[in-house]
Amino acid sequence: MKRLFFFAIGLSMVISIMAQEKNLFTIDDLIPGGRTYYQHSVPEQVYYGWWGDVLVKLDIEVVTRQNGEILFTLDEINAILDAEGKRKASYLLTAQFPYPDRPVVSVNAGRGCALVDWVAKSVVQTWELPANAENESFDPTSGYVAYTVNHNLKVMKPDGREVTVSKDGCLDLVYGESVHRNEFGIDHGIFWSPSGKLLAFYRMDQSMVTTYPQVDISARCAELVPDKYPMAGETSHKVTVGVFDMATERTIYLDAGDPTNRYFTNIAWSPDDQFIYMIELNRDQNHAQLVRYNAQTGKKDAVLFDEKNDKYVEPMHPIQFLPWDSNKFIYMTRKDGFLHIYLYDTTGRELKQLTTGAYEVINLVGFNTKSKTIIYTSNEANLLQQNCYSVDMKGKRTLLDEGTGWHNLNLSKSGTYLIDTWSASNVCRKYDLRSTDKRGQVTHLHESADSWQNYKVPEIKVGTIKAADGVTDLYYRLVLPTDFDASKKYPAIVYVYGGPHAHEVDASFRWGVNGWDIWMAQKGYVMFSIDNRGSEHRGLAFEQATFRQLGVEEMKDQIKGVEFLKSLPYVDANRLGVHGWSFGGFMTTSLMTTYPDVFKVGVAGGPVIDWKYYEVMYGERYMDTPQSNPEGYKNTSLLNKADKLKGRLLIIYGGNDDTCVPQHTLSFIRACINADTYPDLFTYPGDGHNMRGSDRIHLHNKITQYFEDYLK
Amino acid sequence: MKRLFFFAIGLSMVISIMAQEKNLFTIDDLIPGGRTYYQHSVPEQVYYGWWGDVLVKLDIEVVTRQNGEILFTLDEINAILDAEGKRKASYLLTAQFPYPDRPVVSVNAGRGCALVDWVAKSVVQTWELPANAENESFDPTSGYVAYTVNHNLKVMKPDGREVTVSKDGCLDLVYGESVHRNEFGIDHGIFWSPSGKLLAFYRMDQSMVTTYPQVDISARCAELVPDKYPMAGETSHKVTVGVFDMATERTIYLDAGDPTNRYFTNIAWSPDDQFIYMIELNRDQNHAQLVRYNAQTGKKDAVLFDEKNDKYVEPMHPIQFLPWDSNKFIYMTRKDGFLHIYLYDTTGRELKQLTTGAYEVINLVGFNTKSKTIIYTSNEANLLQQNCYSVDMKGKRTLLDEGTGWHNLNLSKSGTYLIDTWSASNVCRKYDLRSTDKRGQVTHLHESADSWQNYKVPEIKVGTIKAADGVTDLYYRLVLPTDFDASKKYPAIVYVYGGPHAHEVDASFRWGVNGWDIWMAQKGYVMFSIDNRGSEHRGLAFEQATFRQLGVEEMKDQIKGVEFLKSLPYVDANRLGVHGWSFGGFMTTSLMTTYPDVFKVGVAGGPVIDWKYYEVMYGERYMDTPQSNPEGYKNTSLLNKADKLKGRLLIIYGGNDDTCVPQHTLSFIRACINADTYPDLFTYPGDGHNMRGSDRIHLHNKITQYFEDYLK
Repeated sequence: MKRLFFFAIGLSMVISIMAQEKNLFTIDDLIPGGRTYYQHSVPEQVYYGWWGDVLVKLDIEVVTRQNGEILFTLDEINAILDAEGKRKASYLLTAQFPYPDRPVVSVNAGRGCALVDWVAKSVVQTWELPANAENESFDPTSGYVAYTVNHNLKVMKPDGREVTVSKDGCLDLVYGESVHRNEFGIDHGIFWSPSGKLLAFYRMDQSMVTTYPQVDISARCAELVPDKYPMAGETSHKVTVGVFDMATERTIYLDAGDPTNRYFTNIAWSPDDQFIYMIELNRDQNHAQLVRYNAQTGKKDAVLFDEKNDKYVEPMHPIQFLPWDSNKFIYMTRKDGFLHIYLYDTTGRELKQLTTGAYEVINLVGFNTKSKTIIYTSNEANLLQQNCYSVDMKGKRTLLDEGTGWHNLNLSKSGTYLIDTWSASNVCRKYDLRSTDKRGQVTHLHESADSWQNYKVPEIKVGTIKAADGVTDLYYRLVLPTDFDASKKYPAIVYVYGGPHAHEVDASFRWGVNGWDIWMAQKGYVMFSIDNRGSEHRGLAFEQATFRQLGVEEMKDQIKGVEFLKSLPYVDANRLGVHGWSFGGFMTTSLMTTYPDVFKVGVAGGPVIDWKYYEVMYGERYMDTPQSNPEGYKNTSLLNKADKLKGRLLIIYGGNDDTCVPQHTLSFIRACINADTYPDLFTYPGDGHNMRGSDRIHLHNKITQYFEDYLK
Repeated sequence: MKRLFFFAIGLSMVISIMAQEKNLFTIDDLIPGGRTYYQHSVPEQVYYGWWGDVLVKLDIEVVTRQNGEILFTLDEINAILDAEGKRKASYLLTAQFPYPDRPVVSVNAGRGCALVDWVAKSVVQTWELPANAENESFDPTSGYVAYTVNHNLKVMKPDGREVTVSKDGCLDLVYGESVHRNEFGIDHGIFWSPSGKLLAFYRMDQSMVTTYPQVDISARCAELVPDKYPMAGETSHKVTVGVFDMATERTIYLDAGDPTNRYFTNIAWSPDDQFIYMIELNRDQNHAQLVRYNAQTGKKDAVLFDEKNDKYVEPMHPIQFLPWDSNKFIYMTRKDGFLHIYLYDTTGRELKQLTTGAYEVINLVGFNTKSKTIIYTSNEANLLQQNCYSVDMKGKRTLLDEGTGWHNLNLSKSGTYLIDTWSASNVCRKYDLRSTDKRGQVTHLHESADSWQNYKVPEIKVGTIKAADGVTDLYYRLVLPTDFDASKKYPAIVYVYGGPHAHEVDASFRWGVNGWDIWMAQKGYVMFSIDNRGSEHRGLAFEQATFRQLGVEEMKDQIKGVEFLKSLPYVDANRLGVHGWSFGGFMTTSLMTTYPDVFKVGVAGGPVIDWKYYEVMYGERYMDTPQSNPEGYKNTSLLNKADKLKGRLLIIYGGNDDTCVPQHTLSFIRACINADTYPDLFTYPGDGHNMRGSDRIHLHNKITQYFEDYLK
């Protein structure tokens, strides 16, 4: 709601300055959390959704069909709610349609939720969970709402009765929450069966995991906030999977054997409620198995297939059954070197590799059940892009968009249509309705105005250079200073992330440039980013080049980028800076200490300093354990490079960072003190791994000031 | 031992550079912890001691009488030890003579201690305590050694048998340790009776005190280190006093009533072992009583007198019985406005105020039992000095030194002689043997060479200006830049402490200048310190001007100092800095936020930010409680001034500071972030309230760099 309100102000202000000179940005315009950020940096947003196969447009006070016909208004919905003494809704923007064939809308009402039949003008169901409830999961078939509270799992039935699934939840033992620190594609811990009669859930025993002592300094007297954090090479948690039967209100656990040093991921139900499929991975992460369990007994039914890799496998995607054939499912793996879609049958036999080529499938969006095709996005058309494709069961791929830009898809119930929200380097944002059967069958729903059209936007270029291996193309993005003068010499800053599962450069609007890049360009800096080997969407070999030595090859590629930068006549090679956060903080600190004569100034945020302080799941995938890879840990530990620091390095961390725990930064500070080197330090007390809201503005002022103090 | 070794090197190097030009200092020369600090900044040290009334000179390998006659050698002592199979001593510098009338020396031997009769050539006693023993307290009369281990109190008898005084010691319940956070003059918790047969000790129950969560980041996975820290206005600990009878091995506790919100201080034994005297203070610290207890029964015997004050009383000194009259004792109090010595009898009757005047007694050194006088130091001769006096029972005072400088005294057994180790603004260090009976009867034992004689030492001046009250004289110290040129304009830095129980300016060598003052003078800064109202040795009214509003009057006085600085033609008023630690960190941060246009740059170390985060004993003495003085806490809280910060302010804290806990600094950082102001930050992980060793060098490089970056 807040977001919209800001936008409304923004629109009027944009109009009022139309006739004026081009403006300069304020930092609030450019950084999330800024007072004018939504107004000036978020493209105009419109809201579409699906009621089955019916496209609906969602506004605050009304929901309309594509032809403009009003489906219902907020007043109508609230009148229905009010008549039955229920709390009213405030807006319809987040309205959902859980039943494709029933005129029922789900709206937020008070702190809870209401399902309203707008034709029968009746309330179908409402619920309001306890204030500290989390992980709400509504099953539309049964009407059950599962949720967690204080690490326990509960279910609220449509009649309001509460069913207790677990009682002994606590910090040491959590139910129904995401496990394995959100690795392996895990982002939740509640899995309703298709019928809604059975509830699979994660249970994680972390009593044996070391407690990281976080401290809350906002209390009257500082208080301990214990957090379970398993560090690489140390004892990890134990996960099991329960199945709660709503009829008997009893739980069975899948009989998967001793959970010590194993990962249970990618839980999927068979369409008939009978089986649970999950992928089981060893701690070394080089051997995965797809295993099927009887959901009633918990007994192991079959191991469908194994997947191994010398370095690691990383199962990220649960299997998905074909809607038209419950004996077949698709599975995504990089076993041929790139992430592709494979068709399997329930005996575990691979029937066909559906997508092939030196590109990666990015998102499996869903199915067109009429044409029996799979809808997905990939970077096949261009490695910087994410385009929309279908593939049929014979492996015939069809590009569904115009082959440019970066597309995000929302498929209708039958999958015959999709809402495509997309941008390109020169397209701010478009909303298109596309047929998934036939390319080119498109209705332009909306084009958002460029909110920077009245601003001086610096020139942004992309290109490729060769990686340090001499072979691989790497994509860079270069932002020239605002009011660029090619005869001048400018300081330059490399903005780096560099880790897996992320990229900096893509073909979205203005090549995905960051607000801070623009801010610094306006202050007279050349801004540069390059996606080194190890970053995402470039295939397995590109990523695994970094195995057991995170940072080493990545830095070599970044230095190739620096050589390119130095070759530019307008870049002052004596005034180079580097900045990054998280893995990028690790890269920044690594670069400052490994190449101490290259960079004059660095700012590292929430850095990894030694992988032995990072968590088991992510850390050991790329680095193995400190016990099995002592050389790799030693060579990449910045504690051993603290004595090499020459330039000015500011390290910033969230005071309660539970991702890269403060021990990283503080250990590096201690190592520098011991080595008689002089980093600078700042912290955001109470913040986690990232700063949000006004803290994020403060942060970027702080970072900017540091470069202005020492690099300008 | 290490210290001596460095000194030996230092001496040879000093000689080798005699003929050269004057040198510039390195930071290692000037700051404790520096590699060349002992060599270049600690005056030559010689070691004298008393064997009864016999003056002895202690060297590494030999102890001699004043006439040079050898008393014994290290080889001789070690031969005696070796013959009885005991561990040998390494040096004699710390040798002590526990019996004035027996030829027995106490030496460190291995990790333990040995008493050797050098005439009979026999070992009298040896002991070696457990490695984690603390608070060792040897009673020479009985030969008992009391000590604490893991918060329990034990005694080792001369035959090696261990006696357990307490068993249930733990973090929540400590025995035999200093209590009340070392306030009220308390610095230990074990008190042997004169006969050595009874052992009085402190017991502190702090189970009800909040636990401050300190974190050890040097562990493999960061670990909690709980510390009991009672914050102002919160629940405090409960102290009781036990008496352990070595004969019965049983403990009784003094029947002092409910210890809640009370302080038990200044424990003293009557000469006949029969009574324990202690001073009992209410939590508001405005009412003290001297109370006598029967040491055998623990019953209260008498309340000798009360002392009250509208603001606070601060009993710091146990009573001391006259050696020649066990019915009389002396007591020190500021009840007339200055700290003076009073004579009482054991009925509690005040017999006489022995010292009087607008000056303070600084140390009560002891008694001359022959002339029946008291030996003490005071600043009667000059408020910057500490001179040596005697006073007889009629109140007749005699100055025993030449009336200049700063004197530290070590009295012989009978008190007829003292070793006076002293310095003056132009005297590096002298060792004199003085008679306490007659002024001028003095033997010059040694004069230490000035270790800076080959260095360029900047000019150091002292003077007075009026305090903000317009009446009171305040002493300042001004250090001019090395190679001072009066026609230039220099940046200036105020070094401030400003709190009670401390001062910056005195008449010791070079007016007590700090090494860092010299370092910065050499870098071209004018260095300035002034002892504002609230600082020590100036009487009660001077100190209590700050009551319930710490920092307010102190800052006004500092600003008077700044006005004086600005009046100097060679001071650049636009380049003023300020630096201080602890209370001085509070003053620095207060000045930067209260007078934001005065100081361009500040460095605050280990600051108090809000007195509500400081401990009960010290905090409530000066500020009362947050509940009873909300305005005072509000007005002095820097959390409420974070928005006023304009200049550059670096705050530095020890990562495990257990005096000014990290919550101070981190809360201020949070307040500044919220207020959109921009302090800088640094921390020394693992360090406490002060940095030592090489960390202290790093710290001063860091502080220096900050002023060089922003003030130069």
